[in-house]
Amino acid sequence: MLLANPENVGSTPTLRAKRIGVHTYGEHIAFISSACRAYKPESFANINKIEISGPGGRKIVASLNIVENGDLLDAHSLGLSTAAFEMLAVPEGADVTFTLAASPRSMDFVRSKIRGERLTAIQVSSIIRDIAAHRYSKSEITAFLVASAAFLTADEVLYLTRAMADVGTRIRWDQKPAHFEAVMDKHCVGGIPGNRTSMIVVPIVAAFGLPIPKTSSRAITSPAGTADTMEVLANVDVDLAQMQRIVGAEKGCLVWGGHVNLSPADDILISVERPLSIDTPEQMVASILSKKVAAGSTHLLIDMPVGPTAKVRSAQEAAHLSKLFQFVARALGIQLEIVLTDGTQPVGRGVGPVLEARDVMAVLANEPSAPVDLRERAIALAGRILEFDPSVQGGLGPSIARRLLTNGDALAKMQRIMAAQGPPPGSPKLGTLVSEIKSPLTGRVGTIDCLRIARIARHAGAPVSKGAGIDLLKKAGDAVRAGEPLYRVHASVETDLEFATRMATEENGYHVA
Amino acid sequence: MLLANPENVGSTPTLRAKRIGVHTYGEHIAFISSACRAYKPESFANINKIEISGPGGRKIVASLNIVENGDLLDAHSLGLSTAAFEMLAVPEGADVTFTLAASPRSMDFVRSKIRGERLTAIQVSSIIRDIAAHRYSKSEITAFLVASAAFLTADEVLYLTRAMADVGTRIRWDQKPAHFEAVMDKHCVGGIPGNRTSMIVVPIVAAFGLPIPKTSSRAITSPAGTADTMEVLANVDVDLAQMQRIVGAEKGCLVWGGHVNLSPADDILISVERPLSIDTPEQMVASILSKKVAAGSTHLLIDMPVGPTAKVRSAQEAAHLSKLFQFVARALGIQLEIVLTDGTQPVGRGVGPVLEARDVMAVLANEPSAPVDLRERAIALAGRILEFDPSVQGGLGPSIARRLLTNGDALAKMQRIMAAQGPPPGSPKLGTLVSEIKSPLTGRVGTIDCLRIARIARHAGAPVSKGAGIDLLKKAGDAVRAGEPLYRVHASVETDLEFATRMATEENGYHVA
Repeated sequence: MLLANPENVGSTPTLRAKRIGVHTYGEHIAFISSACRAYKPESFANINKIEISGPGGRKIVASLNIVENGDLLDAHSLGLSTAAFEMLAVPEGADVTFTLAASPRSMDFVRSKIRGERLTAIQVSSIIRDIAAHRYSKSEITAFLVASAAFLTADEVLYLTRAMADVGTRIRWDQKPAHFEAVMDKHCVGGIPGNRTSMIVVPIVAAFGLPIPKTSSRAITSPAGTADTMEVLANVDVDLAQMQRIVGAEKGCLVWGGHVNLSPADDILISVERPLSIDTPEQMVASILSKKVAAGSTHLLIDMPVGPTAKVRSAQEAAHLSKLFQFVARALGIQLEIVLTDGTQPVGRGVGPVLEARDVMAVLANEPSAPVDLRERAIALAGRILEFDPSVQGGLGPSIARRLLTNGDALAKMQRIMAAQGPPPGSPKLGTLVSEIKSPLTGRVGTIDCLRIARIARHAGAPVSKGAGIDLLKKAGDAVRAGEPLYRVHASVETDLEFATRMATEENGYHVA
Repeated sequence: MLLANPENVGSTPTLRAKRIGVHTYGEHIAFISSACRAYKPESFANINKIEISGPGGRKIVASLNIVENGDLLDAHSLGLSTAAFEMLAVPEGADVTFTLAASPRSMDFVRSKIRGERLTAIQVSSIIRDIAAHRYSKSEITAFLVASAAFLTADEVLYLTRAMADVGTRIRWDQKPAHFEAVMDKHCVGGIPGNRTSMIVVPIVAAFGLPIPKTSSRAITSPAGTADTMEVLANVDVDLAQMQRIVGAEKGCLVWGGHVNLSPADDILISVERPLSIDTPEQMVASILSKKVAAGSTHLLIDMPVGPTAKVRSAQEAAHLSKLFQFVARALGIQLEIVLTDGTQPVGRGVGPVLEARDVMAVLANEPSAPVDLRERAIALAGRILEFDPSVQGGLGPSIARRLLTNGDALAKMQRIMAAQGPPPGSPKLGTLVSEIKSPLTGRVGTIDCLRIARIARHAGAPVSKGAGIDLLKKAGDAVRAGEPLYRVHASVETDLEFATRMATEENGYHVA
């Protein structure tokens, strides 16, 4: 209404919808020709969003860009990016109109939060519903995230978690054992390269007979996520129906969470949060627990590594974060155990999908060369999950887990899970371009900087290049002589190897004393 | 580097730059074909920004969109939106490469601010320089604005103001009178429809002989800015050289600030702030004073209307805001006067560019029908500015201003300024579609809701339709009978009239008791 050209006396003018094959990932984009006479393009300079209406009454919100090129768009059409076109769901050429998009009403609550007020459950839930319905621009989402980063009460974290779980898919599991109506889950707070215990814990717990349908993310800022590493061994691109079949047959799975739509609001929040590197305990708790509620998990074990370069830096931080997890989990009816683990160095030897998959399979196959720290950590975590089962005596979990690993049951279960999920795409191999990073000093390895190792591995090409990464030859406590290699960098592209090697030479991430 | 396709062993692949005629207003946009083999488009899903390098070494940052349509872009090209193409400054088809754009380093200071820390002058200045250089995404700018909205010390406001003034054009004026090295300026904090005193104050002050080069904004959320209203009478689209010529000849001007580039960082901040309706005293002070420093103003009068629906709601708010203005202005060497004015109702009778221009010209021409409140307010404000001149005795400013108005000097000056700026584009007429909004009650008009009147006038089409708006027939204190009209709505488009009339009928904004 506000945008209609005043010379057009009469009703709101229509334009013809045209699909413009542009994927934007973030906001929907609409395109209008600068020659358009029905609307006045020059008045859009300060306008953020428009609301487009199709003939069926369906409405979408989009950002408007002006096109000066007649080849791309004529003066009577409104172009729509791929996702916007699909969401409006009209045929090519359909009559559409548009108007200034009002800011979503829940933005008033975001502004209350910016002023430092506490929000009610209803207010938080209306914000999350609008975010999940793509009614927020990236700026509006950022405003919510930053205002929440300033402070959020424990109650607000609970409201947020519940609201995020409510807008997604809720999975129901029929695979619960009769004596114990439970679905197990496991989550690592993250930050430690090589910490791929899920790929050992899931087969142990499933071999024991408890359901553990594990969804994981792909790496975004780290050199490998569990989904990236599992994808070296099996297909992880599985939808909900397939996932339920696999868990029905095998009790466990290790799949990518991207198709399951567990917490779409969280996915949107993360897509804005990550590039800004805003990471608060409150948002972490809401993000993790909302996905667990939606996934139908009843029992959850959280691995919380603590170390100077881990996500959780001190015992004090760990205590604060644990209390918040416990408060929200209890209110949501999730049985929660938190295990504080060593976060002073990477786990295992490999960092990067192929190298981490090698370590995992070595542990499952009981190879003598398998990294001890990865195995012991997985046994401890799996043991704690087994103890959720009332039929397991307190303290006996780890010994049961160890038995299921050493007797080959866990390996057999992993192989059945891999077969059920199907073969991996391609057959990724370890990067053949290699450089060795040598110790400049003789001494003993102290801590290893997890952030630095992760960065070097990413610059070597992980996780996009699955065979790229770092193979650690020395771990904390090992003696090392000057000139002896600390680790190998693997890459598939010459420039990646050069760049990663240069980074590692500048600062290798090892503290040798 | 991170994005290069691992199968391309060797150096970073090049693409050909292609101008895509899309105006985006906000961030630069780059387009890549989904068929591109040199880079792997599918790995871009979570990537926010890329840094593109041209053959000359110039680099720009852009958001990346993926194009599935071969007509728009072939697999060997990198498309660039208009502004991005111009900023990269390479010929069509030039070889370009790109890599993941690192977040600007000053984002670390934004994250400090989010954590509640105080920033130093150097930190604030590096944030503002990066924003002015378009190195921040909209989300990053929002993060800075929202974190600053939580709290900003007076010192931080000063750093911000100085940093914003430093990145723009600094105007030097050679028109200062010999006895008094000064450049006058006037600013209204805003929020009151019809408050067009600048168009009366500038001719009075210029007629007196003091330089007053006034730049104004166009309306963004209000039904008219001074630039919109002046544009009914004269051209306002003037660049810096023309502005200096006009002020050299006439001492005063009334132009749009858009071409003068006074505070580009502020323009960018406002473009993000406005749609979010985040409006803090700290940001207001930095925004206004940075532009005044850049404009070379030495003496500034601020009109601060106070009322229940004005921007400043209470005497307490006004005191807080005034102190902040005074602290920053003093540190920047600007002589500042703040006048608290009545903000309980609109000023004059007209709301909307054509109607407001009518009121202004009626005051300047001393017409008996001229609105008294607009005239008296302009005389009071102009009088205070004249008293900045040491040759004017304290208390005599208003009587001098009144004389310059009644003797026709101000009108003659306004006509010379209009002639110097040139004729207006088109000849906007008052909207001929009219509806009358009648009082449902008999009584006396109390306050008038400025926000409501502004909203109705905007829905009637102002300021895009210059002849649209509201003509107030009753003001506070007037007696009114049930059925007597309170105001007329003018529009140029039937649907606009209908919509605005419906809004006004629901809630007319008048308190009649």
